Amino acid sequence: MKTFKQLGLIGCGLMGGSFALAAKKSGLVESVVGYSKSPQNGDLAKSMGVVDVVAASILQAAMGSDLILISVPTTATFEVFKALQFGLSADVLILDVGSTKQSVIEAATKALGTLPPNFVPSHPIAGKEQSGIEHADGALYADKRVILTPTSQTNAHHTQMAQQVWQQIGSHVSVMSASQHDAIFAAVSHAPHLLAFAFVNGLSSQSQAAEFWQFAGPGFRDFSRIAASDPDVWRDILMTNTAQILSQIKSFKSSLSHLEAAMIQGDSASVKTLITKSSQARQGWLMNRDIKA
Amino acid sequence: MKTFKQLGLIGCGLMGGSFALAAKKSGLVESVVGYSKSPQNGDLAKSMGVVDVVAASILQAAMGSDLILISVPTTATFEVFKALQFGLSADVLILDVGSTKQSVIEAATKALGTLPPNFVPSHPIAGKEQSGIEHADGALYADKRVILTPTSQTNAHHTQMAQQVWQQIGSHVSVMSASQHDAIFAAVSHAPHLLAFAFVNGLSSQSQAAEFWQFAGPGFRDFSRIAASDPDVWRDILMTNTAQILSQIKSFKSSLSHLEAAMIQGDSASVKTLITKSSQARQGWLMNRDIKA
Repeated sequence: MKTFKQLGLIGCGLMGGSFALAAKKSGLVESVVGYSKSPQNGDLAKSMGVVDVVAASILQAAMGSDLILISVPTTATFEVFKALQFGLSADVLILDVGSTKQSVIEAATKALGTLPPNFVPSHPIAGKEQSGIEHADGALYADKRVILTPTSQTNAHHTQMAQQVWQQIGSHVSVMSASQHDAIFAAVSHAPHLLAFAFVNGLSSQSQAAEFWQFAGPGFRDFSRIAASDPDVWRDILMTNTAQILSQIKSFKSSLSHLEAAMIQGDSASVKTLITKSSQARQGWLMNRDIKA
Repeated sequence: MKTFKQLGLIGCGLMGGSFALAAKKSGLVESVVGYSKSPQNGDLAKSMGVVDVVAASILQAAMGSDLILISVPTTATFEVFKALQFGLSADVLILDVGSTKQSVIEAATKALGTLPPNFVPSHPIAGKEQSGIEHADGALYADKRVILTPTSQTNAHHTQMAQQVWQQIGSHVSVMSASQHDAIFAAVSHAPHLLAFAFVNGLSSQSQAAEFWQFAGPGFRDFSRIAASDPDVWRDILMTNTAQILSQIKSFKSSLSHLEAAMIQGDSASVKTLITKSSQARQGWLMNRDIKA
């Protein structure tokens, strides 16, 4: 079992706090030094036992740490690596939790002039509807997927260590390129969020909105759940994986226009064929089929 | 408590079978005579105790019944009223379960030359992912909404009886016009189904589809659940409430294009504003708020 002396936690929110709790509980790390931009969050993390020491700066959280987790909004990645530039030893393993990976790699490269070979970009497919350190949960990553997107500059040794870290807190690890990652998550996560935001805004802009809410049922509930997501997190995702997301929206619009055309033409048979295609595809899907098998 | 001697059940599927079970259990009806286009379904309904007698025709199921429930795909409404035209007494209370109401009213009027004053169009907001008599459930309508859409030709007396019937099996009744009903359900149910069908078809038409399914998580699961819906039921809904649904899609597209434009322009502040609007609206929504209050 791989163990670390000190976790430097940069960003004390739901994702970082949950990682720290899981890491302490599983014996992965001995102690946690946490930095938060918001002093209140740092204090709360300490009072919850998520971090042992609150650091006054990013650099201070990194000093003496042999494992660093960057758990900040992805648009803050540049700033974090910039702050770390004179405090990074070649031994420390650096991970992040960003939902888009090409933008994180670009930001790190831009901040340091080169991508650190000991940084293994990571995306845990886990979350909650409520964000914030107060919702931190040591079981958040258990039985969830984590995608690692090392580049050709990443040390194979550090990628292997990253796998062990995530596995030790119960996650199932896949490795792929950052561009493949961003394409897949644009399709199955980012585009549906964008569609759900647009759908809810489309309803709430109508004069009958109050009646709509009153009669909305379980179909609406599930379809629109992700429309309640955190605006900061999702602004970052929509602004950093834009091209891939818009490409998925194009594919969606093409499917939608086929259905609309069949409806307008009164082509009942084609409408049924298109619904059957969707229904069979969705019925054939089972989440984490390979994890559970 | 209102009671009926005999329920004539026309259509033995999930909705009709569940109604018959609830009606028998609550003492609303003494016996059930059921007709199904499929002889196997009729026999299964009898062996399950959902119906007491299997009728050989629509007319036979209606004969001697003082309550009739039409629980067939809405596009079969014309055919059912046509078959009933010489067997309808003025006393019998007729209900249906169709998800679109203007089309049902039009079909009944067309079949009989005039809308029967003892027919109270009804839409129970209840269902399951699995259709078919084998999934019939006496609790399906408990604590669910039912919308009644009587017209100016409907007897107030029969509308009142219909309210009592649905209440007796545990439903919460609202009354509105058929056009209002169709507008509301286009917004909160029919349009999201159409969007979910288009979204899943948009994914499955891509060469990377297998990978998409593998990495899809809880957001995808909930957003796309309704894309697995029954093709016959949803073809009927999309083909009968077409204008209202397409009008909702227009509103959705307008919202989507605002988000897309902000993303393309790199207008991070507007993207956040639009997500915040969606997030707050969705977080403020609680299903059946007035029922539970």
